[in-house]
Amino acid sequence: MTKTPVGILGATGAVGQRFIQLLADHPWFEVAEVAASDRSAGKSYAEACTWRLPGAPPAAVAKLTVTSIEGSFRSKLLFSGLDSSVAGEAETALSGKGHAVVSNSRNHRMDPDVPLLIPEINADHLDAVAAQKRRTGGGYIVTNPNCSVIGLAMALAPLERAFGLESVVVVTLQALSGAGYPGVASLDIVDNVIPYIGGGEEEKIESEPQKVLGSFSGGGFVPARFPISASVHRVAVVDGHSMAVFVRLTRRASPAEACRILADFHGEPQQRELPTAPRKPIHVLTADDRPQPRLDRDREGGMAVSVGRVREDRQFDLRLEALVHNTIRGAAGVAILNAELLQARGLLK
Amino acid sequence: MTKTPVGILGATGAVGQRFIQLLADHPWFEVAEVAASDRSAGKSYAEACTWRLPGAPPAAVAKLTVTSIEGSFRSKLLFSGLDSSVAGEAETALSGKGHAVVSNSRNHRMDPDVPLLIPEINADHLDAVAAQKRRTGGGYIVTNPNCSVIGLAMALAPLERAFGLESVVVVTLQALSGAGYPGVASLDIVDNVIPYIGGGEEEKIESEPQKVLGSFSGGGFVPARFPISASVHRVAVVDGHSMAVFVRLTRRASPAEACRILADFHGEPQQRELPTAPRKPIHVLTADDRPQPRLDRDREGGMAVSVGRVREDRQFDLRLEALVHNTIRGAAGVAILNAELLQARGLLK
Amino acid sequence: MTKTPVGILGATGAVGQRFIQLLADHPWFEVAEVAASDRSAGKSYAEACTWRLPGAPPAAVAKLTVTSIEGSFRSKLLFSGLDSSVAGEAETALSGKGHAVVSNSRNHRMDPDVPLLIPEINADHLDAVAAQKRRTGGGYIVTNPNCSVIGLAMALAPLERAFGLESVVVVTLQALSGAGYPGVASLDIVDNVIPYIGGGEEEKIESEPQKVLGSFSGGGFVPARFPISASVHRVAVVDGHSMAVFVRLTRRASPAEACRILADFHGEPQQRELPTAPRKPIHVLTADDRPQPRLDRDREGGMAVSVGRVREDRQFDLRLEALVHNTIRGAAGVAILNAELLQARGLLK
Amino acid sequence: MTKTPVGILGATGAVGQRFIQLLADHPWFEVAEVAASDRSAGKSYAEACTWRLPGAPPAAVAKLTVTSIEGSFRSKLLFSGLDSSVAGEAETALSGKGHAVVSNSRNHRMDPDVPLLIPEINADHLDAVAAQKRRTGGGYIVTNPNCSVIGLAMALAPLERAFGLESVVVVTLQALSGAGYPGVASLDIVDNVIPYIGGGEEEKIESEPQKVLGSFSGGGFVPARFPISASVHRVAVVDGHSMAVFVRLTRRASPAEACRILADFHGEPQQRELPTAPRKPIHVLTADDRPQPRLDRDREGGMAVSVGRVREDRQFDLRLEALVHNTIRGAAGVAILNAELLQARGLLK
Repeated sequence: MTKTPVGILGATGAVGQRFIQLLADHPWFEVAEVAASDRSAGKSYAEACTWRLPGAPPAAVAKLTVTSIEGSFRSKLLFSGLDSSVAGEAETALSGKGHAVVSNSRNHRMDPDVPLLIPEINADHLDAVAAQKRRTGGGYIVTNPNCSVIGLAMALAPLERAFGLESVVVVTLQALSGAGYPGVASLDIVDNVIPYIGGGEEEKIESEPQKVLGSFSGGGFVPARFPISASVHRVAVVDGHSMAVFVRLTRRASPAEACRILADFHGEPQQRELPTAPRKPIHVLTADDRPQPRLDRDREGGMAVSVGRVREDRQFDLRLEALVHNTIRGAAGVAILNAELLQARGLLK
Repeated sequence: MTKTPVGILGATGAVGQRFIQLLADHPWFEVAEVAASDRSAGKSYAEACTWRLPGAPPAAVAKLTVTSIEGSFRSKLLFSGLDSSVAGEAETALSGKGHAVVSNSRNHRMDPDVPLLIPEINADHLDAVAAQKRRTGGGYIVTNPNCSVIGLAMALAPLERAFGLESVVVVTLQALSGAGYPGVASLDIVDNVIPYIGGGEEEKIESEPQKVLGSFSGGGFVPARFPISASVHRVAVVDGHSMAVFVRLTRRASPAEACRILADFHGEPQQRELPTAPRKPIHVLTADDRPQPRLDRDREGGMAVSVGRVREDRQFDLRLEALVHNTIRGAAGVAILNAELLQARGLLK
Repeated sequence: MTKTPVGILGATGAVGQRFIQLLADHPWFEVAEVAASDRSAGKSYAEACTWRLPGAPPAAVAKLTVTSIEGSFRSKLLFSGLDSSVAGEAETALSGKGHAVVSNSRNHRMDPDVPLLIPEINADHLDAVAAQKRRTGGGYIVTNPNCSVIGLAMALAPLERAFGLESVVVVTLQALSGAGYPGVASLDIVDNVIPYIGGGEEEKIESEPQKVLGSFSGGGFVPARFPISASVHRVAVVDGHSMAVFVRLTRRASPAEACRILADFHGEPQQRELPTAPRKPIHVLTADDRPQPRLDRDREGGMAVSVGRVREDRQFDLRLEALVHNTIRGAAGVAILNAELLQARGLLK
Repeated sequence: MTKTPVGILGATGAVGQRFIQLLADHPWFEVAEVAASDRSAGKSYAEACTWRLPGAPPAAVAKLTVTSIEGSFRSKLLFSGLDSSVAGEAETALSGKGHAVVSNSRNHRMDPDVPLLIPEINADHLDAVAAQKRRTGGGYIVTNPNCSVIGLAMALAPLERAFGLESVVVVTLQALSGAGYPGVASLDIVDNVIPYIGGGEEEKIESEPQKVLGSFSGGGFVPARFPISASVHRVAVVDGHSMAVFVRLTRRASPAEACRILADFHGEPQQRELPTAPRKPIHVLTADDRPQPRLDRDREGGMAVSVGRVREDRQFDLRLEALVHNTIRGAAGVAILNAELLQARGLLK
């Protein structure tokens, strides 16, 4: 069986490298094209890229020649890890040329016919692809949310469905890899915390989950209505965003009920047994002091979200701690899962 | 002018070392006695103590002989940095012998006639000392709150007075020194976050501020009534507890109004110009990314609390970030300030 | 085909946990017995052990009942990760009962008939096992060197064979996991370096390599004769010991020649294709700034040593940087490779 | 008494900020002019500078207007923390205009008539200033060595004088602040070590100490002749370069003799009681595990070098661990001490 060739946009960047690492032995997809800025174009990937993940890039990709993101691509499916300064136009152009662009960039996330997809939660939002195809003439864009939002939305979705959400407060402790490379200066973070993340991080956390947890009906997205208040921090952790979450529910639930609902959560990726799907999307941990980034971020290859310390709160109904591997489940991994769902649904033909 | 001799209980521990460091050149007090467990008693302080602060212990203290905490003391004023496993009984016994015990330990904080004192906020709670003296026959205990609570209460007090507090949510990122020594294992915190602190940390944060911000009237403490929800984390920071705080007010206030009230905050320590009092107890920072532990914890010798990112919130009225040096303003420093207030009010005679 | 049952001594400790993790899907061996101190005996492994590696212990081991190390064992092969305070007597006793004890502990490393084994280097030292068996009546002990020594000896062995060694200077930057758990206090290492490691670390590094690189002939070990000077440091790295090495050779060699010899190095584990053997025991890296612990420690599952910055020196012939995963190639992994060699040579019957 | 006005070149950079911090309450000097790149010129210092040291810049400097380094200066004495890309020409030009340029930059360090000054060691090298003045017509440049070299040279100088040096090997563990800002990316150093520092760090360490420890005679510098081999690392420490040093002496000395010589070391700054001079330039520490960056870098305001673990070595005579605060004694602090010596010797008239 031949694999589906795919292209990586922004292939030398932090997210692009994760795409290449995670696709190294993928059963369905094969990296056939790597594109980056004009500065890199024409070089071999090995030359153009300073590989910042452990080890070295896969040999098969290392020898590919980097092309310009403004060129044309043979692969129908393109993964985009482009910087937001260029992603907006580039992705529009490529979807206009008939490509299926599966993007981690923020530019098109809130577009009225672009799914903001986490396959366990809102696979039905793919209905919007039909509308897009009509608009573009064949291509389309599918995006995934911000890395923190993915951890938050995964923890909230089962609770929303089972009990209804009235109010959410979230405070994050985010990893360094979320800022790309070079990202945060070491002098700013060793023996330190930065109580701020630029690029509208808090605004994204306060608005993207409602689209994810809303519905697509009548040709448009109807966002969920619960309000979110967010406060964010950068901490000296390599990978893995932690977050303290407080939730008020429409129908009260005990911590034990909530844990059961969280642990049982699953969706279309599990039903279809997609290659990158975790067996259990949410790992509910019972030890007092978990989840911890270094110990829990790699559960199920970094695709499972961990939830712990589910307990009562005197003002809210529940409070809990969630953890997501920000560059796997929170970025490249979820995008690959999104593409697998497109393939499984026949949307890559 | 001769200085007042003081004794340090738990002198070889983490808090005890801070007492000795901060009292090294104190204009009023002089360390005359150092007491610790029987294991250390009889040794010189230099021998008994593995000094974990920068540099070396003050020469005058290094040569003192460590005594047992069960012995008798010549100094009226005793600072207690005792471990909570022994502080309860020891402090009761010593106040029974006529000593003024100024304690950082948690054991007597919620006692009905023991002030939980932050001098800028509730100096009037010292009225409870008279009741204690009647009970003990002369001695008494004055405590300070938990290190996180001090940062939180300092940020809340001006808002409570100006606008009234309806609801508080706080999420902390706490420094390693808060756990004493050896405290947190390095393998547990490098490239990691621990979403838990033992010893009832969240419970203290949810209950102590109400006593601090309440009143002493009719012979008893009347706690403030606003509810607090807390979620705590340990992070890889040496000193300085950060906290994200959300507050709902009785009377709405803009961020600008709140900043003005916070920046103007002061109390009896400033009026009396106590030696350890910061000129401004709260530093309101305007840069987007402040306060940061490494850059802001040492403001005014570690005695000022920093507040930044005061902004509107869609569910609460305000959210902000606060920072306190947990072993100075949050422990030994505030205890010394408490003792200075006792001295200034004539309570050490 | 049935797997060989094995026992783990010190199963709940840091090295014991690595044994269990690395043996989880081993093609030849299966963990059948777990032993620890009397404090743990009688509990299930899941209860007795606070698992400090990522994720959770393998389910098959989690349900085993922990036994006392003073009890008897059904498995011929026992892996020992015992603390040196008990390993000496316990390992002697168990070899006396006929067991093959493959130990990471330091107690018997320099015994006159106990191999100090790194299978790529001195597989012929297994000839000493026959002498041991005569002494004990059937059982025997095989040890591996100290974790730093393994990295150093791997880098030196090819150079010793090709060019001869006259003098070695080594300065280490060692990871936290080398100190076990709880090991180094976080307050001692965040924003810090400790220029000291207890337990005779420098002495081991200055003496063990000569036994490893020496010969076994005429019934005894004849150590290699080159002198080593060592200076050690603890740094804030989770796993991976780095070391700067200076070597003076008997016959001069250029960096290029040395790199070729290092890259080509292999031994019996590679010839026999033992399950845990790295394809290439030494990865020679050419980038200026490698090897780095976080990026290179996991090469070939942590079993390859990385060498970089091979360059000329004005006083020595060569200087270079070496890196070893201290708890895999430097401890549990090399011990498993040792056991695989015993099995392949028929010494486990 | 009026203070001497001084200018700071490169005032907004990392070294420039340290100059301004250390000169805040200087008894002799007063910052009167701040210069930086054209991008900053015309702004107030507070606007132009993102202050990265704790707290905030001194108020008196914050309101100064930044000028261009290509402009003219009223102050005779200029401190240079310029980047090496511009320092060479700028410092030459300014010394040509009659200024005394006291520079931390590397460009002129090895010039044949420019002192490479550490005042305790080679104050007599100031004789070269007369030659420079003849060349320039009045102005001159005085430089200090690289930050690591200062720690190394301070530890070597007493040994060289007392016993003679035959050979030195040094391996460094260098702090993040040595790379300026933004400097090292956090993703490169958390849970990691980088065995490389660009800009010819090893070459500087292998060549500058010989000029410092050599003589100025017959109108030229005669370097000391002992060889140095260096290997460098970057570690996750904010401030403070650690180094393991091996020394072979002309005349053997015991560790005890060496410690006595090191502890007694002093020079002209101590004799003249210069304001920034440490009382004891070298602190000899006797605890097994010292010096440590976090605990010892700030001794005597960061101006004392710490030496510990002085012990015998089987190949060299001695090995020891040295520590220098790289941005105080190793950069801005030593430059200020150099300027104080110039003032005391009447060279600033």
